[in-house]
Amino acid sequence: MKALVYHGPGNKSWEDVPDAAVQEPTDVVVRVDTTTICGTDLHILQGDVAAVTDGRVLGHEAVGTVTEVGAAVRGFAAGDRVLVPAITKCGRCVYCQRGMPSHCATVGGIGWIFGHLIDGTQAESVRVPYADTSLYAVPPEVTNEQAIFLADSLPTGYEVGVLAGEVRPGHTVAVVGAGAVGLSAILTTGLWGASRVIAIDTNKFRLSTAMDFGATDVVEAGPNTVADVLAMTDGLGVDVSIEAVGYPDTLRTAAALVRPGGTIANIGVHGVAVELPMQDLWIRNVKLTMTLVDTVSIPTLLTMVASGRIPAEKMGTHTFGFDQIDEAYDVFANAAANEALKVVITSNG
Amino acid sequence: MKALVYHGPGNKSWEDVPDAAVQEPTDVVVRVDTTTICGTDLHILQGDVAAVTDGRVLGHEAVGTVTEVGAAVRGFAAGDRVLVPAITKCGRCVYCQRGMPSHCATVGGIGWIFGHLIDGTQAESVRVPYADTSLYAVPPEVTNEQAIFLADSLPTGYEVGVLAGEVRPGHTVAVVGAGAVGLSAILTTGLWGASRVIAIDTNKFRLSTAMDFGATDVVEAGPNTVADVLAMTDGLGVDVSIEAVGYPDTLRTAAALVRPGGTIANIGVHGVAVELPMQDLWIRNVKLTMTLVDTVSIPTLLTMVASGRIPAEKMGTHTFGFDQIDEAYDVFANAAANEALKVVITSNG
Amino acid sequence: MKALVYHGPGNKSWEDVPDAAVQEPTDVVVRVDTTTICGTDLHILQGDVAAVTDGRVLGHEAVGTVTEVGAAVRGFAAGDRVLVPAITKCGRCVYCQRGMPSHCATVGGIGWIFGHLIDGTQAESVRVPYADTSLYAVPPEVTNEQAIFLADSLPTGYEVGVLAGEVRPGHTVAVVGAGAVGLSAILTTGLWGASRVIAIDTNKFRLSTAMDFGATDVVEAGPNTVADVLAMTDGLGVDVSIEAVGYPDTLRTAAALVRPGGTIANIGVHGVAVELPMQDLWIRNVKLTMTLVDTVSIPTLLTMVASGRIPAEKMGTHTFGFDQIDEAYDVFANAAANEALKVVITSNG
Amino acid sequence: MKALVYHGPGNKSWEDVPDAAVQEPTDVVVRVDTTTICGTDLHILQGDVAAVTDGRVLGHEAVGTVTEVGAAVRGFAAGDRVLVPAITKCGRCVYCQRGMPSHCATVGGIGWIFGHLIDGTQAESVRVPYADTSLYAVPPEVTNEQAIFLADSLPTGYEVGVLAGEVRPGHTVAVVGAGAVGLSAILTTGLWGASRVIAIDTNKFRLSTAMDFGATDVVEAGPNTVADVLAMTDGLGVDVSIEAVGYPDTLRTAAALVRPGGTIANIGVHGVAVELPMQDLWIRNVKLTMTLVDTVSIPTLLTMVASGRIPAEKMGTHTFGFDQIDEAYDVFANAAANEALKVVITSNG
Repeated sequence: MKALVYHGPGNKSWEDVPDAAVQEPTDVVVRVDTTTICGTDLHILQGDVAAVTDGRVLGHEAVGTVTEVGAAVRGFAAGDRVLVPAITKCGRCVYCQRGMPSHCATVGGIGWIFGHLIDGTQAESVRVPYADTSLYAVPPEVTNEQAIFLADSLPTGYEVGVLAGEVRPGHTVAVVGAGAVGLSAILTTGLWGASRVIAIDTNKFRLSTAMDFGATDVVEAGPNTVADVLAMTDGLGVDVSIEAVGYPDTLRTAAALVRPGGTIANIGVHGVAVELPMQDLWIRNVKLTMTLVDTVSIPTLLTMVASGRIPAEKMGTHTFGFDQIDEAYDVFANAAANEALKVVITSNG
Repeated sequence: MKALVYHGPGNKSWEDVPDAAVQEPTDVVVRVDTTTICGTDLHILQGDVAAVTDGRVLGHEAVGTVTEVGAAVRGFAAGDRVLVPAITKCGRCVYCQRGMPSHCATVGGIGWIFGHLIDGTQAESVRVPYADTSLYAVPPEVTNEQAIFLADSLPTGYEVGVLAGEVRPGHTVAVVGAGAVGLSAILTTGLWGASRVIAIDTNKFRLSTAMDFGATDVVEAGPNTVADVLAMTDGLGVDVSIEAVGYPDTLRTAAALVRPGGTIANIGVHGVAVELPMQDLWIRNVKLTMTLVDTVSIPTLLTMVASGRIPAEKMGTHTFGFDQIDEAYDVFANAAANEALKVVITSNG
Repeated sequence: MKALVYHGPGNKSWEDVPDAAVQEPTDVVVRVDTTTICGTDLHILQGDVAAVTDGRVLGHEAVGTVTEVGAAVRGFAAGDRVLVPAITKCGRCVYCQRGMPSHCATVGGIGWIFGHLIDGTQAESVRVPYADTSLYAVPPEVTNEQAIFLADSLPTGYEVGVLAGEVRPGHTVAVVGAGAVGLSAILTTGLWGASRVIAIDTNKFRLSTAMDFGATDVVEAGPNTVADVLAMTDGLGVDVSIEAVGYPDTLRTAAALVRPGGTIANIGVHGVAVELPMQDLWIRNVKLTMTLVDTVSIPTLLTMVASGRIPAEKMGTHTFGFDQIDEAYDVFANAAANEALKVVITSNG
Repeated sequence: MKALVYHGPGNKSWEDVPDAAVQEPTDVVVRVDTTTICGTDLHILQGDVAAVTDGRVLGHEAVGTVTEVGAAVRGFAAGDRVLVPAITKCGRCVYCQRGMPSHCATVGGIGWIFGHLIDGTQAESVRVPYADTSLYAVPPEVTNEQAIFLADSLPTGYEVGVLAGEVRPGHTVAVVGAGAVGLSAILTTGLWGASRVIAIDTNKFRLSTAMDFGATDVVEAGPNTVADVLAMTDGLGVDVSIEAVGYPDTLRTAAALVRPGGTIANIGVHGVAVELPMQDLWIRNVKLTMTLVDTVSIPTLLTMVASGRIPAEKMGTHTFGFDQIDEAYDVFANAAANEALKVVITSNG
């Protein structure tokens, strides 16, 4: 079969590899019908993720069709249309049993293994370990072009931003950074009754998209961001401040926006230490959450997409076939300039 | 001043009474600009509420203007536009401190005292005890014709139905009884992300209104109600089943609709004992909540109305002046026949 | 091997049966070192549980040693000392994923299958389905004579009484019925900081045992039970009222004891409908929980037993060998008269 | 009357001041029978708290007797024995209504006003604003020498450490810093069922006291603290890590101890920014809470002390009369050297 193989920093290639096959009785093989690219894939290509080595098939998001089933699998059969989420869960370790498979002890202490510790989903087929506890059936009302964004980006915005931030009815929420994940948070704040959602970014396309995704206000990021948001909120700040960028400055901005009793929910991937003004924060009755996506919200999100209440398809701005995957990477790597959010890559593109 | 005075079962009269006046340093007097009638007022007139005696001014819902302020009141001043909620809270007893003023120990073990233990709001003015902890300022974006329904009916549907029922994103909710309070529950299920809301009633006008208020499905109540709802939910039943009628049969219906892990939230006022099928229920992992409105959700609801996310004004189907209050009672007493939900009674009607 | 086989109402026999063996790749076989008898086993012998048919091996509680492992099992190996809990969980159905395996959709819509839908644990060996997600390793600090009570009775008192009842620091708790399960609730109220625990029973031995298990007060059940408890609680009643008997009268007693804002947690197995005074309850801000044990608290309970904070061994009042299992049933069937709580049955007894 | 008056950095004096008197109808005056000194008082004397100006009576903790009652006060009468907590709450602002009076908007945006924004409790009498919502009656079973520690230090350890940290049954908890507040956290971890409590300090007296207060393990702080704690917890770290010192290093230590899914609860008063290793933390599924004491747990703590489950009196290691208050400050300022935890200062010392 064909797959996108990593060959060290800056190098990847759509090439022939051995067919995906069942190795353990709890595995299934899924033919990939739709996949996409994550910001993490770009980090890997920059050589930032040491665990990814030469020869690894990339990608950790897919919608596809089951083609082969291990002897112990009971919940899925050949022909089932399934969502392959970013997180693999054994279902039995202490972390999986408490709903936190992002730290699944069985698959390596981290639930993200596709395109990382095992071969991934940017391929014609993929082996899925612990299929019974990891895969989700896709309801007929949900299209592949919607479901693909439930593999990682939408659950990330929802779980790491909205759920960890404890958005509640009547809340005012700020989202610092309106890229794909920040927009995913914005798109799902309504599930918990936020009354006001303030999107903050430097990019006008993203701010305009944020309004389309449910933001009620936008702030063009700059030296006055904090003052602007305080002015919009009677000087109080917001109930929940979601950081979706990953830099020291943006985290400090997020922290400065929150009112007493509020939550700073960090989604950003941080590469360096951050100096936090504890001399101000210790007295402010706030908390800072630092979580990874578990993808355990997928059943809820599938229900909401099926009922028409989350237009997940809006995340996909560009579509490509497998044979155009290099072009898809180029577009996604320059997402802001290309007015791209997420790309859709299909087997029959 | 004029007020609607109770004179024993079946008798009431809009008549002269002494002016409302501050009696305690924590009181204010509010000029009533807008009031309404509650189903409980009809029960009082039938003689069902023994604590209400001859000479009592009726009513427990008002929007008005502060005219006089007790010496200890710090949060309100003459001229303030305020919401007088159904529940009075001292703010210091054990129940008030835990957010449950419906049982305020200070004002009589029950937070509902207007038109019950003290004179009420169907009057040109009303004395409001414990004003600092009981009144709410009405934001300029919210009209009197919206705010009046936040005095009792909307918080009742929301707190006793949606909050006690623990509606969560993705849930399927059934509401048994689509009168004013059942509709209030329906109108607020979206604050917690319900994906599907099934309204059940015998009255076609109410079912049609339910769809307008956010229901996704309706069931005309009858011998097949339970079977119908199970058929709509893959045989599982609903996550949250809200009872908003108050009869043994409707409570048993609500109980029969709920799936394992779900909640039966009773809003109905019950006059007799109810035989519950514990031989079936004990094994079903469900809970039955029996709560009173605390009106502590008013700040949240005011925010949601102000932001345009709850069209509270839809509750008001008929408008009257104070001098038409008898007519207002007649319309409301036959609400279903008159296609009435709640009436709006204004000082300048 | 030998096992206790059910042969219709009133008939059981310790007899030869085929050896337990792995049938599915997710099975293990456990050699039973220690087992016990549950009140449910007595119900089965009375013919009350239609799903249990002639030939079924009884029992659903065991501590033992893994002897055979299916091909897909990864978490356990031959020689491991394990706890076989009353509830089997597939780990992947919607109920298991939300921590409610008592309704596991995969194993029959009910997690209790041992000695019910499949052969049970009152045997020299038992086949355990879905071993990876169902079994628990027993830490070395915990003896078999402690662990055996974590298979069912302690988690039942804790989950269905203390957890569902939402016991919190400072609470006053009443437990109606101080049999093995009521005592299990009493033994675990301290985990959530109850300040006062009132045991109610007709049997003096049980009341005396209740004091030993952590009750602070006892009430001999009788016509004045409710008045007595109210007198002990300043007329307010208790925060959490746990019903551990299963009759209409005892449930009504439990309901009458609870103060506004409190919870009635039903543990009792009910065989008939119960008339509840909804005309009093609807206004009391209480909830009634009706749950089944999920055994998901076993890791917590094992930790607490290992740390010496729960003396689980106190539940075992009588010990027997497998060849004395008839005698064990006789003692347990007349538990109160025999001053028995739970019996311990061991392979080498 | 006599009171301890602040006269700028380093200067204080027990001197004559005007008698405390009711100024507002919601005030009471309390004769101080017992008071104590807080670490914050030492900071004030060092000139660290700019809002405290020359002439201010110090102190924010007292147990005493009501002597005068404002016209609007309904919950207290002359002669009542009361606890004056560190936090004053109006009971009506948005923060008080959500149980967060530490930010009471009415009394200055911060609930701590005694000995800070108004005259305090190290005096023969003190004026208490918003008495109805701020004071607590002391039950007869609780002595002054117990109650005094519920004014600030015990609620701080409990609310800011144990509650914010979300200690739950079976948890392993680390407490970095075993001074008065860290020990208060240790003393109350049992209310939520902690199975293991690891105290970390440099001082042997404090570590020994920690064991007496309920710690199960101690670690002498040093370069190997993190490694030591990880070694004690199978390499996983703790569920809840409580920081009770207030330095960058101790906060980083607390952060390094927590396992995935855990909480770092900051109690420490921080004077400078802290560099946090976000490059490690963002992926660890942890949260950092930064809260102030609200003293809303006082009713729970009074109940637990009254029931004998919290030996609060152990916090008081030294006793003085009002006329020895300078000596009391000297002892407390060198608490570790004097093997002091908290001092008790009484009117009849």
